[in-house]
Amino acid sequence: MTAIDFRGRDLLGMAELSAAEIRYLLDAVPPFKEVSQRDIKKVPTLRGKTIVNLFFEPSTRTRTSFEIAGKRMSADVINVSVATSSLSKGESLRDMADNLAAMQVDLLVVRHQVAGVPHMLARYLSIPVINAGDGAHEHPTQALLDLFTIEERLGSLRDKTVLLVGDIANSRVARSNIFAMRKLGMRVRVCGPRTMLPPGLERLGVEVSSDFDEAIQDADVVMMLRIQRERHGEVLFPSPQEYAERYCLTAERLRRAKAEVLVLHPGPINRGLEIAPEVADGLASAILQQVTNGVAVRMALLYLILGGS
Amino acid sequence: MTAIDFRGRDLLGMAELSAAEIRYLLDAVPPFKEVSQRDIKKVPTLRGKTIVNLFFEPSTRTRTSFEIAGKRMSADVINVSVATSSLSKGESLRDMADNLAAMQVDLLVVRHQVAGVPHMLARYLSIPVINAGDGAHEHPTQALLDLFTIEERLGSLRDKTVLLVGDIANSRVARSNIFAMRKLGMRVRVCGPRTMLPPGLERLGVEVSSDFDEAIQDADVVMMLRIQRERHGEVLFPSPQEYAERYCLTAERLRRAKAEVLVLHPGPINRGLEIAPEVADGLASAILQQVTNGVAVRMALLYLILGGS
Amino acid sequence: MTAIDFRGRDLLGMAELSAAEIRYLLDAVPPFKEVSQRDIKKVPTLRGKTIVNLFFEPSTRTRTSFEIAGKRMSADVINVSVATSSLSKGESLRDMADNLAAMQVDLLVVRHQVAGVPHMLARYLSIPVINAGDGAHEHPTQALLDLFTIEERLGSLRDKTVLLVGDIANSRVARSNIFAMRKLGMRVRVCGPRTMLPPGLERLGVEVSSDFDEAIQDADVVMMLRIQRERHGEVLFPSPQEYAERYCLTAERLRRAKAEVLVLHPGPINRGLEIAPEVADGLASAILQQVTNGVAVRMALLYLILGGS
Repeated sequence: MTAIDFRGRDLLGMAELSAAEIRYLLDAVPPFKEVSQRDIKKVPTLRGKTIVNLFFEPSTRTRTSFEIAGKRMSADVINVSVATSSLSKGESLRDMADNLAAMQVDLLVVRHQVAGVPHMLARYLSIPVINAGDGAHEHPTQALLDLFTIEERLGSLRDKTVLLVGDIANSRVARSNIFAMRKLGMRVRVCGPRTMLPPGLERLGVEVSSDFDEAIQDADVVMMLRIQRERHGEVLFPSPQEYAERYCLTAERLRRAKAEVLVLHPGPINRGLEIAPEVADGLASAILQQVTNGVAVRMALLYLILGGS
Repeated sequence: MTAIDFRGRDLLGMAELSAAEIRYLLDAVPPFKEVSQRDIKKVPTLRGKTIVNLFFEPSTRTRTSFEIAGKRMSADVINVSVATSSLSKGESLRDMADNLAAMQVDLLVVRHQVAGVPHMLARYLSIPVINAGDGAHEHPTQALLDLFTIEERLGSLRDKTVLLVGDIANSRVARSNIFAMRKLGMRVRVCGPRTMLPPGLERLGVEVSSDFDEAIQDADVVMMLRIQRERHGEVLFPSPQEYAERYCLTAERLRRAKAEVLVLHPGPINRGLEIAPEVADGLASAILQQVTNGVAVRMALLYLILGGS
Repeated sequence: MTAIDFRGRDLLGMAELSAAEIRYLLDAVPPFKEVSQRDIKKVPTLRGKTIVNLFFEPSTRTRTSFEIAGKRMSADVINVSVATSSLSKGESLRDMADNLAAMQVDLLVVRHQVAGVPHMLARYLSIPVINAGDGAHEHPTQALLDLFTIEERLGSLRDKTVLLVGDIANSRVARSNIFAMRKLGMRVRVCGPRTMLPPGLERLGVEVSSDFDEAIQDADVVMMLRIQRERHGEVLFPSPQEYAERYCLTAERLRRAKAEVLVLHPGPINRGLEIAPEVADGLASAILQQVTNGVAVRMALLYLILGGS
C-alpha cells in the first residue's frame, strides 16, 4: 500500500486504477479542501509548475475547476481552447501536444470529444496527462469527486447502493463511476430507457432496471445524468415530456427512497427534464457540494502528480 | 458616515447608492491609482482571493480593466466568456453562477446584455456581485471612473454642469452617470435626437436640450456617448452624416464651450461620428485618463468589497 | 558594443537590427533557458509588470510561448484575442492600443494579419511593442529562436549555409531569417516553386535554386517552411502530391545532405506535404528544440526590454 505513488503518472480513467489507488487519491483530498475554506485561499505548493488546460470541447465548469485548483496552489495555468476546425488546418494533435511539452509544461489536462485522445497523448508524451473527459469514455476526476462527496455525506462507500439514471450508454460520468464503484465494493444499479443502456452491463456487475420507481426504493445514492437534448431528441426518446414522466427525479419519486438518500448530478442540470428544481435545490441534493469537492479533488491530484508522495 | 462599509456588498448600480457612499468610494481611489504608477505595479492586498469575470457580452476593455485591477492586487482572476448560445443548451444563469460560487470564488464581475441579470444573481448568491454593464440599464464602475476623472481635472463635482450627448435612452453609461451626478449635486443636461431621449428625464432633475450648439455653452463637462451604428442605423437617425452634422463634437462646436471644458467618452469611440478625431485627441479630452482611472477605481472597489474598510 | 541597451525598445523586425544587436540578444538567452529546466520554473524578475498579448490572428503556440515566458518571470500576462470583425465595429486599432497603454500596461506583444501593424502601433505608442508576426512581413522572435537553435547545435553561425524551402514569398519566417542570417555572415539559399519566390532575392545576397536535390547537398541547415494549403491550393502549385514530390523533405532527400545537417521547421508542420514524418521526428530534426528555445528567447527579450541591460 505504501508503494502507491502518483508522481509523474497519468490519470486517464478509473478502469486503470486499483481499489487501493482510488482509496489513496480520496484520502489525500481533505487538506486541499481546507485550503479553499481559508480567508487566503493560496498555498505555494506548485509554484513554478506550468499546467496547460488543453480543451477541444467547450467547458466552463471543468476548465474553471482545474484552473482554480492550479492557481490556488500557485501554479502557472495556461488555457488553450482549440476549435476542431483549427486543428484540421494541418496540425496533428500529437504535434500540438509535443509542442506544449517542448515548452517544458509540467502537466496537460485534456478534454476531447473523441474517446481515447488523452490516452493516445499520454502514451506519446513524457509529461503526465489528466483526462478531463474524452467522448463517451471516461471522466475520472468527476468519479473521484462523486465518490468523495458520497463518503463525506454517508460516512462510507462499501456496500452502499448507487442508482444511476439516464443516458448510461453515452455518459463518460457513468462509465467512470461504474468502474470505480464496483472496485470499491459498492452496489451499482442503472435505470433508463432501453435505447440508453449499453450492452454488457451485467458483466461489470451492474444491475439493470427499467422501473425508476422501484429501483429507487433501497438506493443510498441517486445519481442523475445529464440528458443531451440536442443529440438525442427524436431518436432515443419520444419527447422531453415522456422522458421526464418516466425518468425525471421529482419530489414525489424521491419520497419513495430512503429518508437519508443522497442526490447527485454532474451538471449542468436540465431542470424539469431529468431533475425537478425542488429536488436539485433540496436537502437531499449534494450537487453544489460536488462542485466544491471538484476543486479539492483536482488540487489533490495535481499535487500528487506534480509534487508529493 | 463612519458606518459605511462595502465589505461583502454588491455594486449593482448608482441608483442604489447614497451620495455619501459614492463619496466614500471616490475618496478610496487615489492610493490605488498610485500603485499603477510604480515601477513594480503589484501589491499583495488580494492574495488568495478568486475573482471571476463572467462576461456574456464580448468586451475587451472592461474585462481587461477588471483583470488588470485584480492581478495588480495579486488576486487570482478567472475569465469566463459565455456565448449566449451555450447557455441556451440548458444551463440556467442561476445554476452557472451557483457553480462558480460553489468553487469558493470570492467575487463575481458580471456583464450581460439583459438588464437586471447582475441584480438577479446578486439576490440569489451569497458572494458579492459587481455589475460590469447590464443591457441599457447600469454600468456603475464607468460612472465612478467618470466622476473621479471630472473631480481630478476640475477640482470638484458640486454645481458643475455636465452635458451628455447622444443615445441617452439606450446608454447604461448615461443612466449610471445621471443617477450619480444628481445625487452629488451636479447639474445634468442631455442632448440628442428626440428618438434617443427617454421619457421622464425631467423627473430625474435632468434638463433636456435638442440644440447642441446652445447646450454646450455653459457646460463644464461634455460627455459624448457611443452611437451603436449597427443597432440604430436606419431607425433612429436618418444617416451617419446627418447625425454627425447635428451631434458630432467637432473642434468648431467645442469653441463655443468654456475654455476649460472637459471632454469625456466611455469608448470605444466612433471617430467622425459622435466625436471628431482632433477633439478626441485634443487637450480638453480626458478619454485616456478615464481609462487609466478605470483600473484604479476597480482596484479600490475590489479592495473595499473583498478586504478592507 | 557596451552601448547596446534594449530597455524600452521595440522589437519589430530583424531588418531594423544590427549584427551586434542580434548577437547581443542571442548571448542573453542561456540563463533564461536554464530557468525552464529547473524544478521550480519561476523567477521574480518581472514581478509587477503587465504584458498584453494582443492577437488579431489565432495562434496557439506563439501566444502560449509568450504567455509562458512572461509568467515564468512572474509578470502579469493578459491575453486579448480580437476577431477582425469586432474591430470593424468602429474601434480603430490605434484607439484599442491607446486604451491598453492607458491601463499602464508595460509591453504589447502584437500579432496581426496585416504587414506593418506592429510598426504603426510602435510609432504611435510610448510603450514597447514586440512583433509576434505581421502578415507576410516579419516574425523576429522566430528568427531569433532559429538562430539560437542553429548555434546551439552547430556551434557557430558564421559561414554556415542555410537552405530555406517552400513558400518564400509569403513567409514572414523566411524574411526575418534572411535579414538576420545575412547580417550574421551566413550563406542563405532558397528553393521553391517559381510562383513562391519573391523578386529581388539576389539583392539581399540570397542564392536561388529550383532544384531541391542539388541545393541540399552542401547545406548545414535545411529550414522547411509551412505550406498554407488553404491560401494557395490551386493557384501556386498544381496539387499537394506534385508539390510534395518536388519539395517535400523526405528521408531519401535528406541522405543527399551532409551527415550532420540540421532540419528546422517553424511549425505547425504538414506531415507528408513539406516534410516527411520520419524526418520531422528524426535525429537531424531540431523542431522541438526550436519550441523549447522559443520560450527562452522570449524570456530574454522581455527581460531586456522591461528590466535589465
